Amino acid sequence: MVLLVHHPASPFSRKIRLILSEKKMLFVLKEELPWALSDDALKLNPAGSLPIFVFDGKVVAGNYAISEFLEEANPDEPLLPKKIQDRAETRRLVEWFDDKFYREVFTPIVAEKIYKRFSLGESPNARIINSGLNNLAFHMEYVDWLAERRNYLSGEAFSLADIAAAAQISIIDYLGDVPWEGYKNAKIWYSKIKSRPSFQDLLKDSIKGILPAKHYANLDF
Amino acid sequence: MVLLVHHPASPFSRKIRLILSEKKMLFVLKEELPWALSDDALKLNPAGSLPIFVFDGKVVAGNYAISEFLEEANPDEPLLPKKIQDRAETRRLVEWFDDKFYREVFTPIVAEKIYKRFSLGESPNARIINSGLNNLAFHMEYVDWLAERRNYLSGEAFSLADIAAAAQISIIDYLGDVPWEGYKNAKIWYSKIKSRPSFQDLLKDSIKGILPAKHYANLDF
Repeated sequence: MVLLVHHPASPFSRKIRLILSEKKMLFVLKEELPWALSDDALKLNPAGSLPIFVFDGKVVAGNYAISEFLEEANPDEPLLPKKIQDRAETRRLVEWFDDKFYREVFTPIVAEKIYKRFSLGESPNARIINSGLNNLAFHMEYVDWLAERRNYLSGEAFSLADIAAAAQISIIDYLGDVPWEGYKNAKIWYSKIKSRPSFQDLLKDSIKGILPAKHYANLDF
Repeated sequence: MVLLVHHPASPFSRKIRLILSEKKMLFVLKEELPWALSDDALKLNPAGSLPIFVFDGKVVAGNYAISEFLEEANPDEPLLPKKIQDRAETRRLVEWFDDKFYREVFTPIVAEKIYKRFSLGESPNARIINSGLNNLAFHMEYVDWLAERRNYLSGEAFSLADIAAAAQISIIDYLGDVPWEGYKNAKIWYSKIKSRPSFQDLLKDSIKGILPAKHYANLDF
């Protein structure tokens, strides 16, 4: 059995779910709270982070290790280009979203609106959320710029860069915080991603205690 | 020409320098301040982060993209094991240091002691530094635990995991903040890493305005 320990508000969990679906692998999901992992999950990943991938009793833990592992183990449905230099461009953008977008946009918005509320029972800090929303405008401009010049974010083909971006953006979109109207090319790109079979499962996601924005699951948004 | 835009207090710059040296590649270093990148550097890497790798007029930017690029471009001196499952274990530990150690230890200590002082001209916050030092004790225990069981951090052979760990730890050690005495196996591991030819250049590093701890460059520390 292939198992993914995940949470619907964990962008790296979403990233790995999308990779698994794109690679047409069957898997079972097990939900854990990122801020209160069970002892079982901590045993699987002492780093205490999600997602955790388990297959045939073996464990691969962490966003970076799992995504590279799946690419090496299932090269038939590649999510990285063939040429080494093109792969570097895809990975540059993966890091852009996994690291920069995550720090500058995801953390201030989602840590305040979801983690702080449900893990600490505290009210979100509007100043911190606003800094995340300001940073989001800069990142949306960059996505829009890329999407205007390229078919997909890192080039002509759909890749891990699109997955890393959509994993983060889809959670912000669940909260209704993505200003699509100002970014036509980014919107066209996201509607292509949203239409992929791999994305349908994410559009049915439900984050406990928070209703999705009305347009969240609509292909026409 | 092969150029690396770097800073001696940037752990990801140190990581790539170690990889380049282990792969016996010749390169030229160009120093930039991480908190005040020049316009030239920002043009090479719009993410605004170090390091940046330039060869034959082509650019690879970011820790993740550069390290995987160098492994693919120079497979003769491998820093990842052959078996896919072993590669996942190495990458799990790379992520441990690049992400978890960096957030929990490096940032509170080095951002306060170096970045804050030189970029903002402010005094370091002792409470934040102490939280980093407390977290460091936990991480040293983990390194010690791994080093007791394995020849190198991710298994029998030297790998990218050792490089990622040593890149972070060596900067904390420059500041004199690593409590080696409590962690015998970690100390033996670090002395092995410190003795490697690839490490000698790092031991000559000088971070402007801060003298290295007395033992920093000693192999017997």
